[in-house]
Amino acid sequence: MSTAVRTESDRVRLRLEVEGEIDALLARTSRQAQTYGTEFLRLWSHTAQHVRGGKLLRPILLLETYDALRPDGDRREALRLATAVEALHFAFLLHDDVIDQDLRRRGELNLVGELVESATAAGRGSAARHWAETGAILAGDLLLSSAHQIVARVRAPEATRERLLDLLEHTILETTAGEFSDVGLSDGMVAPDLDAVLVMTKQKTASYTFELPLRAAAILAGGSPELEHALSIAGAHLGLAYQLQDDLLSVFGDADEHGKDPYSDLREGKHTAVICFAQRTSAWPVIARHFGDPQLQPEDAVRVRRLLTDCGAEDHVRALIDDQLAALTELVADEERGGAIPARVRAMLLDLAARIDGRRS
Amino acid sequence: MSTAVRTESDRVRLRLEVEGEIDALLARTSRQAQTYGTEFLRLWSHTAQHVRGGKLLRPILLLETYDALRPDGDRREALRLATAVEALHFAFLLHDDVIDQDLRRRGELNLVGELVESATAAGRGSAARHWAETGAILAGDLLLSSAHQIVARVRAPEATRERLLDLLEHTILETTAGEFSDVGLSDGMVAPDLDAVLVMTKQKTASYTFELPLRAAAILAGGSPELEHALSIAGAHLGLAYQLQDDLLSVFGDADEHGKDPYSDLREGKHTAVICFAQRTSAWPVIARHFGDPQLQPEDAVRVRRLLTDCGAEDHVRALIDDQLAALTELVADEERGGAIPARVRAMLLDLAARIDGRRS
Repeated sequence: MSTAVRTESDRVRLRLEVEGEIDALLARTSRQAQTYGTEFLRLWSHTAQHVRGGKLLRPILLLETYDALRPDGDRREALRLATAVEALHFAFLLHDDVIDQDLRRRGELNLVGELVESATAAGRGSAARHWAETGAILAGDLLLSSAHQIVARVRAPEATRERLLDLLEHTILETTAGEFSDVGLSDGMVAPDLDAVLVMTKQKTASYTFELPLRAAAILAGGSPELEHALSIAGAHLGLAYQLQDDLLSVFGDADEHGKDPYSDLREGKHTAVICFAQRTSAWPVIARHFGDPQLQPEDAVRVRRLLTDCGAEDHVRALIDDQLAALTELVADEERGGAIPARVRAMLLDLAARIDGRRS
Repeated sequence: MSTAVRTESDRVRLRLEVEGEIDALLARTSRQAQTYGTEFLRLWSHTAQHVRGGKLLRPILLLETYDALRPDGDRREALRLATAVEALHFAFLLHDDVIDQDLRRRGELNLVGELVESATAAGRGSAARHWAETGAILAGDLLLSSAHQIVARVRAPEATRERLLDLLEHTILETTAGEFSDVGLSDGMVAPDLDAVLVMTKQKTASYTFELPLRAAAILAGGSPELEHALSIAGAHLGLAYQLQDDLLSVFGDADEHGKDPYSDLREGKHTAVICFAQRTSAWPVIARHFGDPQLQPEDAVRVRRLLTDCGAEDHVRALIDDQLAALTELVADEERGGAIPARVRAMLLDLAARIDGRRS
């Protein structure tokens, strides 16, 4: 079974393949954009630059899964689908950044931030933010369209294409619903309770980050509905564990390693699972004084962090992650005793779980 | 030829057909949305209500064209495509309203305005605007996805489907570019010159309002590339004339008839062709004092309106409209002498031109 688990160098090779395909998509759109004037071309080249800088988690997962299911398959369409998944990811990120009014992502200027800078340099300070947010909305629309265009043109039997379109539709509906709940939690339109946060997390992140690539690979590989269903459940466990780990890291992690502002979630008042647990404890009144304060000072942040540990929130979320990873392990064991997921894919899922468990950045 | 021109009652029948199809799409999405909580369902039901209230100009044009090309054709797929075109229109409107920070459209609350009202009623005054704009961005994403889903699933030969996908891709790129130029004109990132405004108008409005329905009908009806090309040119003339007429009406028209705030374009500082002409005249310094003033008073607006007439802007834009309609008439005459557009469609195009010419609301 060990040969089925990809090594780091396998993943580098997959990354290069995906990058080549994404570059081809971006270059094609750039050529089309040239007809529409300097500003539009510049918007697209900024967008392309950001898309190129991604971690490619989702497309690599899709390709790894496809390769494990069809070691001798024709990978061209899998590569195309992988690109679609990355385009969808960036469309969501761009609209999310507009919604969250962020100028940075993971410490770097995001597209809005970059457009603000270039418009300010052009002497358009007062309108720069509006111009930049407009650009991000429109670039998101273009990438959302690209994702659909790729899936719609997949060279596969009619029934396969329809299943992929169904999956895309479901994923977008679910992710959109999750995003709306997330904003609803921040804006006080949705009551902040731990269950609501977990459902939101599953919808907003797990659905398109793990379930989509796993299921898309299964469909393209000609897998049964049973395989697709089992991978969907596996994806939900992995996705939830991944995002909860992300929430923990952003408060308790080593900022130097993961590159995020260590207190941005606290400053922005993000209703993560960590926060929702703390809200039910006696530590909350003190934490609440600093939660959502854009001016949060490091010494207060350190204090809040300690309170989040002492009130049991950190341990509780770690336990939630363990639950999800344990459920994944159990699912894999069940599948081994007679299920739809083949051995290579089972090994890949366990490897993923181990990487999420050990994640430090 | 007169029998080919639709009567008002034909159009009422077409409208009912389109409404039925749009209702079916909206009901389907509502059922899917139910899984995702009260707020998401409410977002979708507000969205559906707005989509239902549209004038249906674009889907009716598509169906009229298809019927004229294939009087005995199977109209089911044409109806589906008509719905896709309307979904795309609303996706653009929703994102446009967020970008323009509008709460109303044609005198009525738009989706953002309505969500602000309901969030304010729920006691969430401070976050209401953010919540509402988030809703409009996400609802726009869902409608943009719906438009793609419908086109991707059209039951037609592979080559037809690919041509339709190409058309959708081209239209979205062009409309997005037009929207970006329009905002660039307002934000001072694009120099406001009359040619730039005409190109922007062609891209932002003519492309998806006239060219898309005409070309989509031609493709679905199995028309030749020559027919599609000729209809594309016809659509550009009609679309430009339509939007320029709209710009004129919004400044000089009878507000009671067209239902728009008569001075909203002036208040918002919209760089229409009327304004761009006036900028090159000696009347501009006085107009400029009021242009883009959200507090513009009726007596000043009347004065600006008179100046826009006296400086020749009104006449100039009327002449531009006449040019476009004359070009359309000439194209139709050429086609009659031996072209790709059949008689029924030529009659329909002339009828459309006459309606744009005589438009009062």
